[in-house]
Amino acid sequence: MPLHDPAHAFVPYPDTPVPHAATGPLAGLTFGVKDLFDVAGYPTGGGSPIVLAMSGIKTRTAPTVQKLLDAGAALAGKTVTDELAFSMNGDNAHFGAPVNGAVPGRISGGSSSGSASAVSNGLCDFALGTDTGGSVRAPANHCGLVGLRPTHGRVSLEGALDLAPSLDTCGWFARDIGTFARVADVLLGDDAAPLPAAPRLLRPTDVWALATPEAAEALQPATAQVEKVFGTAAPVDAALESFDAMYWHFRHIQGREAWMTDGPLIERFAPPLGPGVKERFAFSRAVTDAQVAEAQAFRTRFRAHLAALLGEDGVLVMPCMPDIAPLRSDPDAALEDYRNRAIRLLCLAGLAGFPQLSLPLARRDDAPLGLSLLGPAGSDRSLVALAEQLSAR
Amino acid sequence: MPLHDPAHAFVPYPDTPVPHAATGPLAGLTFGVKDLFDVAGYPTGGGSPIVLAMSGIKTRTAPTVQKLLDAGAALAGKTVTDELAFSMNGDNAHFGAPVNGAVPGRISGGSSSGSASAVSNGLCDFALGTDTGGSVRAPANHCGLVGLRPTHGRVSLEGALDLAPSLDTCGWFARDIGTFARVADVLLGDDAAPLPAAPRLLRPTDVWALATPEAAEALQPATAQVEKVFGTAAPVDAALESFDAMYWHFRHIQGREAWMTDGPLIERFAPPLGPGVKERFAFSRAVTDAQVAEAQAFRTRFRAHLAALLGEDGVLVMPCMPDIAPLRSDPDAALEDYRNRAIRLLCLAGLAGFPQLSLPLARRDDAPLGLSLLGPAGSDRSLVALAEQLSAR
Repeated sequence: MPLHDPAHAFVPYPDTPVPHAATGPLAGLTFGVKDLFDVAGYPTGGGSPIVLAMSGIKTRTAPTVQKLLDAGAALAGKTVTDELAFSMNGDNAHFGAPVNGAVPGRISGGSSSGSASAVSNGLCDFALGTDTGGSVRAPANHCGLVGLRPTHGRVSLEGALDLAPSLDTCGWFARDIGTFARVADVLLGDDAAPLPAAPRLLRPTDVWALATPEAAEALQPATAQVEKVFGTAAPVDAALESFDAMYWHFRHIQGREAWMTDGPLIERFAPPLGPGVKERFAFSRAVTDAQVAEAQAFRTRFRAHLAALLGEDGVLVMPCMPDIAPLRSDPDAALEDYRNRAIRLLCLAGLAGFPQLSLPLARRDDAPLGLSLLGPAGSDRSLVALAEQLSAR
Repeated sequence: MPLHDPAHAFVPYPDTPVPHAATGPLAGLTFGVKDLFDVAGYPTGGGSPIVLAMSGIKTRTAPTVQKLLDAGAALAGKTVTDELAFSMNGDNAHFGAPVNGAVPGRISGGSSSGSASAVSNGLCDFALGTDTGGSVRAPANHCGLVGLRPTHGRVSLEGALDLAPSLDTCGWFARDIGTFARVADVLLGDDAAPLPAAPRLLRPTDVWALATPEAAEALQPATAQVEKVFGTAAPVDAALESFDAMYWHFRHIQGREAWMTDGPLIERFAPPLGPGVKERFAFSRAVTDAQVAEAQAFRTRFRAHLAALLGEDGVLVMPCMPDIAPLRSDPDAALEDYRNRAIRLLCLAGLAGFPQLSLPLARRDDAPLGLSLLGPAGSDRSLVALAEQLSAR
């Protein structure tokens, strides 16, 4: 770990050499790894003191991390995660709040807080995170980074701690699309069915209405630029039920799976969970079978609905989050309100399992704001290619 | 660590074999070690997630722990400590609140919370703790255990995390005086100048006035028994200045040294400290050189005063704590008030560096209450011998 980490982005584990290839497509780049992934020679803490205590020193490196090492990237360190990855705020009650490198007075977002912090503060070139309900997309938006939630299952999470397996994905952050694309080539390879060079842009007006008017306005120039390059976006409705209903369906699936993952640990050790995390697990414990069944049936219908809407060439152009990052000094209730609004935007990709790329193309009030591209299943690399085209103009 | 530790007394580190002698004076006994002491094969967490992360796996075992292993005792596990050992409540915001085995609805006391919990719940036979300002004596009182704060420097703290080195001591807990004395033989050996068989008992009336009337009354039968065996205690005043002044002198020394120990860590990592601990370090940071100088001059005078009072044969018979343990459900302010009153009793041995033994000889309101014996420097083993004599009657 960097001995002087002014951003508190890295978990201060003792330095342990992690070999990487001398040459390869990522040679010369350094990267951070969210402390959910096993790295041989290090513990895996998952943002939880009890998990850290139980961890011991891992002897195997998660395959996705190994891929990056084999491609020549050098490990900079393991990064702080929100507790058990079950938060969107980037403030771990036990390990601290990594600093947002783009706007230090605002939250970094989470749960991949340390990864976004490390990259946005220039402490490494890119960093791995995970995204269950927004844990890559939220910090990418907040810290002014490129960040991808990939198609569910596309990037291996083997050797990483679960939160809600049917929603968990492995994503990453970079400051620029060039670096981001180099990592994409290693982690994604080519799409089996790439998007066409001129995709069919869609503007989900119902989703746009979830952003604050100020954020929607601030995103207009970037949207206009996207349309200038790829053609005018056709207005559509993306939701299948009300956003309230989608919100609850998402939370019921996430909650049930999170409790199956971490409930045994919580019941056995009664660990003191941080603010918000505690309440979220209490909610999770109380989710009923009927709620889960209804949510899963909805998810199946919604995935089919979104697949039909997008076909093989459609891309939603939409806000990543309702607005810029809240202030670090905002009261808990304001953060919780922001989170509840954010889940309504974030749950589309989550429920469908489709890829969503956040691009730091806008600002308001001196803070970054992400415009996002959401494509059909398997279009991950194509979305990155669109962003490369945009950047080249 | 015990896989099923219903008291949450042990830190759940992965089991690692720690060899011990097959025979010896402690053969057949199991013991817990407060997670401030290094044990080869384990990390040392100090009740702090950041310290745990930085620890790595230790390769050497603290000499005092090794002495116990060499005497045939078997390690049961490492026990939870209050955060950075800077609390008296036994509630770690990151690792939890070990359960008081004598009265589960009341706090275990701390900072040697897990050690007292493990012994009082019968999870091991004895356990090592440390006592800077009461961290053995408070949990011994609260959990109904025999506990000793030894003469400063008598039992080695090498290989253990510091809090305030000029006050830190290494003590231990057992449920019965027989087991306690077996450990005393190993850790203390003989006193260089033992107390006489019939010590001169002193009853510090000013200290007794610091206990609640209910506690003082509940301690009368035990005091009468001590006097029956060893003779009537002569009333004395033990304090040199007001207890308020002594309280502040103690806190200024402890605070300055605690900040010298942990300030660099706190300033570098800005770790989220738990309730109370955070405020105590903020206080510590603000202690002035003038306050420290005045406190140290007082300490020198007080040590001489107490040494003169006790001579080579005097023993103070006094309450260990102001009362039984507070309820776990008591508000923070009540716990802080209890702590502030307790420091006034506890600071006598702390400032003087003299040994104080707490004995679970009383109860009130269905909770244990300790009567304590405070002797001159170096009288540690003699105090234990007095307790053995008492127990034999």
